[in-house]
Amino acid sequence: MCTESLAGVHPRVADAIQYALRSPGKRVRPLLLLAAYQAAGGTGDATRLSCAAELIHAYSLVHDDLPCMDDDDMRRGRATVHRVFGSRTAILAGVLMIPLAVEVVRASTSSMHLPESRARAIARALLRAAGSGGMIGGQLNDLLGEGLSLDLGELERIHAAKTGELIAACVAMGALAADAGPEDVHAFESYGRRLGLAFQIMDDVLDVTATTSQLGKTSGRDQALGKSTYPALLGVDGARRRAQSLVEEGLATLRERGLLTTKLAEVANFMVSRTS
Amino acid sequence: MCTESLAGVHPRVADAIQYALRSPGKRVRPLLLLAAYQAAGGTGDATRLSCAAELIHAYSLVHDDLPCMDDDDMRRGRATVHRVFGSRTAILAGVLMIPLAVEVVRASTSSMHLPESRARAIARALLRAAGSGGMIGGQLNDLLGEGLSLDLGELERIHAAKTGELIAACVAMGALAADAGPEDVHAFESYGRRLGLAFQIMDDVLDVTATTSQLGKTSGRDQALGKSTYPALLGVDGARRRAQSLVEEGLATLRERGLLTTKLAEVANFMVSRTS
Repeated sequence: MCTESLAGVHPRVADAIQYALRSPGKRVRPLLLLAAYQAAGGTGDATRLSCAAELIHAYSLVHDDLPCMDDDDMRRGRATVHRVFGSRTAILAGVLMIPLAVEVVRASTSSMHLPESRARAIARALLRAAGSGGMIGGQLNDLLGEGLSLDLGELERIHAAKTGELIAACVAMGALAADAGPEDVHAFESYGRRLGLAFQIMDDVLDVTATTSQLGKTSGRDQALGKSTYPALLGVDGARRRAQSLVEEGLATLRERGLLTTKLAEVANFMVSRTS
Repeated sequence: MCTESLAGVHPRVADAIQYALRSPGKRVRPLLLLAAYQAAGGTGDATRLSCAAELIHAYSLVHDDLPCMDDDDMRRGRATVHRVFGSRTAILAGVLMIPLAVEVVRASTSSMHLPESRARAIARALLRAAGSGGMIGGQLNDLLGEGLSLDLGELERIHAAKTGELIAACVAMGALAADAGPEDVHAFESYGRRLGLAFQIMDDVLDVTATTSQLGKTSGRDQALGKSTYPALLGVDGARRRAQSLVEEGLATLRERGLLTTKLAEVANFMVSRTS
């Protein structure tokens, strides 16, 4: 479904992109986008739009795993893209997913008959989250921070950029597509930022507590790479508590504005109770 | 001037992007965009818009030179980005240049007071040229073709995608920004495609005939990498003649519609007579 826009892409790169997209992931970002869309009163079909978010996320995983980045062999229980297709194809496939995501936003917002200004706001939210203030900036700070002792504030800024901004953008994109007003969009974004940070904290926790087969990716990587993590700074229980309280804050923000749905609460609670 | 949008980018990545952008290149793409803008009757300042084209081009050079791609140490007479900043930063800086280019298009078309539909058409032209049918697709086919004997048709398709589409997009972006009608935009694109192909043919020729110090990048790389080239298929003189006739076709297309300016002819002739 995300891959209909691959017509014309070189077969080898298209295979690599499909491999990256079709891996058995949790699909947290598209699920959140859809849940926010519905919570904000959207009645159309935002499924295709949600693929744009997954494309950007999947691109980041493909590049994260590269030999010159985290150098990982496993992702979502399978060999990483560069292990199957080689680093060249993995880099090109990853890069290509950025303009593809923009194209998916354009096509989906057009088929949803959204006004031009909404379509642009949605594309900007996604690209901003992917850009220097978001994922790529956070990823770089994360890599540069390897082997350094970061304090909680520094770690939180890195995680907020690396994971929080894209999750916040997904929720905002859903709200924007449902024609939510600026204050509601802002509330959804706050919820998304807190959720994103909680999600990353739980990633750190699971890296310590879960096995490689539970995670579907190599466990214990953070320690091996000398990364600062929440469990190292707060202990495993302290990190869990921090994640839980972030989720509660996020849910409260939505509840206050009457935007909290069962689905949004479910996704939030899944994110802190997950075991993989 | 291209780098004003780097506020907020991590200093190390910003340095890498500036290093890539400020290297002593020929600036053919921004020059073409500006020349097309003026030829199509534009009276404003399209300089900032032209930076978006250079960002996409510079990104492609940074990634092209990576160890897992062409593995090159020199570019434009200086050490390549990954040799100075490392592969991690080079990959991230390159990727970041794509959303930065989109942001530069948005900011520049807005300050030029272009209508929304024009701004979108400009952004789409640039992203399409960067995407699977354009640069990234052509780059992949180029890499996959190493060591294979390609015929002239195959080589032309690869070069058209790898180089021709972005150059055509630059010319089209200039014309679109000047509010040219669809037939004029089409004529500019045809000119750009022919020029782009001629430019790539001359790249192949110079790889054989020029020295490393003339080129500012390692000469003789194509043969070392087992790439099919125009000089190999047509001989050096035959390749030069093909480039010359493509440029003449391109100029004729513009002349027929009364769009040919001295500047556009100059850039075209420079592209086939250059020695570096």
